[in-house]
Amino acid sequence: MKTGVIGLGLIGGSMALDLRGRGFASRVVGVESNNLSAEAALRLGLVDEITELEKCIEQCDLLIVAVPLDAAVKMIPYILDRIGDQVVTDVCSAKEKIDEVVRYHPHRSNFVSAHPMAGTEYSGPWAALPGLFDGRAGIICNAEDSGTKPLEIVKDLYDCLNMRVIYMRAAHHDVHTAYVSHISHISSFALALTVLEKEKNEKNIFDLASGGFSSTVRLAKSSAEMWAPILTRNRDNILTVLDTYIEQLEHFKRHIVEYDEAGLKETIRKANKIKRIIR
Amino acid sequence: MKTGVIGLGLIGGSMALDLRGRGFASRVVGVESNNLSAEAALRLGLVDEITELEKCIEQCDLLIVAVPLDAAVKMIPYILDRIGDQVVTDVCSAKEKIDEVVRYHPHRSNFVSAHPMAGTEYSGPWAALPGLFDGRAGIICNAEDSGTKPLEIVKDLYDCLNMRVIYMRAAHHDVHTAYVSHISHISSFALALTVLEKEKNEKNIFDLASGGFSSTVRLAKSSAEMWAPILTRNRDNILTVLDTYIEQLEHFKRHIVEYDEAGLKETIRKANKIKRIIR
Repeated sequence: MKTGVIGLGLIGGSMALDLRGRGFASRVVGVESNNLSAEAALRLGLVDEITELEKCIEQCDLLIVAVPLDAAVKMIPYILDRIGDQVVTDVCSAKEKIDEVVRYHPHRSNFVSAHPMAGTEYSGPWAALPGLFDGRAGIICNAEDSGTKPLEIVKDLYDCLNMRVIYMRAAHHDVHTAYVSHISHISSFALALTVLEKEKNEKNIFDLASGGFSSTVRLAKSSAEMWAPILTRNRDNILTVLDTYIEQLEHFKRHIVEYDEAGLKETIRKANKIKRIIR
Repeated sequence: MKTGVIGLGLIGGSMALDLRGRGFASRVVGVESNNLSAEAALRLGLVDEITELEKCIEQCDLLIVAVPLDAAVKMIPYILDRIGDQVVTDVCSAKEKIDEVVRYHPHRSNFVSAHPMAGTEYSGPWAALPGLFDGRAGIICNAEDSGTKPLEIVKDLYDCLNMRVIYMRAAHHDVHTAYVSHISHISSFALALTVLEKEKNEKNIFDLASGGFSSTVRLAKSSAEMWAPILTRNRDNILTVLDTYIEQLEHFKRHIVEYDEAGLKETIRKANKIKRIIR
């Protein structure tokens, strides 16, 4: 299947790599507005060719939109306006906004709203990794609005990427990702800012590789271009989770202020229950 | 050197393993109040024998106290009361409290206040790992209060564990660890509690292995027995950092409330600077 990948960052690039390498795509046509990224994607063998969006739409049977959310909400309707029987899918991590812009489109059934839940804290085509999606969850939202053939093709795509397909309502998805992904990023960004603030005054005192800091702050390296639109467009869900998170921190603070070791132990033991549901 | 390890959890057990395996210790004598842990430590070959504290003190040249902080503040003076020319060291992660209880002890110079900055989120002798300390920072506090020979022995101990020795004031250490270790743990505990709170109402919606959640919540598995005393005994430093952390989260919240994508991008780019100082 001739496959177009629009946006050759970490996600688009990694998809291109595996779809090409594993024989799903007979040819991968890339679209990338940043020239440096486009050249790198060619040089790294992520795609067979780079072309313009309109030419990519003409040539391909399947179009994967892998640009940041704010660009995607404009680009997806633009693409749907120009297709015949091609299949279009996306990779965005806030699905209600996507649903809003496609819901009444005459080509809605050609579109499959999807979110492959995988990634690293790095970005750009140079961050692309083979096998990035293996074993992870591939979420398909509002499947009843997609046609049978488009759904089958996107399921095959996720099969090729070794993903477990999960079906969800867009609204449910956005609550879910606010909890399991978006709040983790905010928590990491804030941790990085806290330490950087301190570091201004006391140079070189930190041995940051130790003490668990590295793992909790890993996500703070994530791209501003990708994350700012996600945080504003999944606003209400994120604010709910963020308020709960701040309350939990205030709860810890009260225990510490009061030297309440017993209360702290009880609270930490509650938190330990995360072992039960995390793999 | 005949080495006593008092407390055979993750840290004590891992030390015992490498000190024995790498030939630093001619014999490792363990002390462990939990019978199940004591038996496991013997069975896993972490120690040559298990004995009582008083017998361990008599037999050994070097005593490593690796019990939780609240037990250590009582146990270290008790041991110092009973030694001749033996060397005593600890592994606690809040050093001012330790300094308080040893400062005026007649055997203060036999004691080396130390903190090997390594660990995992697991605990108990079954969590012990060979090579756990390789390449990490071994912090020695208030070295001028320790004798020359005790300092040399503890430096050799850390050399054997492949640690980089760093000298610091206890007060400075406690500020440092509040930033690089203690706040990371609070941030993770609170994240786990936030998600668990939600999970009560909506069973099985979470695919928690994805979306960066696993890495930010990893530390939430850490032991309540170890962490409650650290958080109360490094209280003032932790409260300062925690207040800054909550302010940073409120700052994020304001941007999100106001749909301020430009402000979010700027804030996230600031947080990205953590790349510069983390390895």
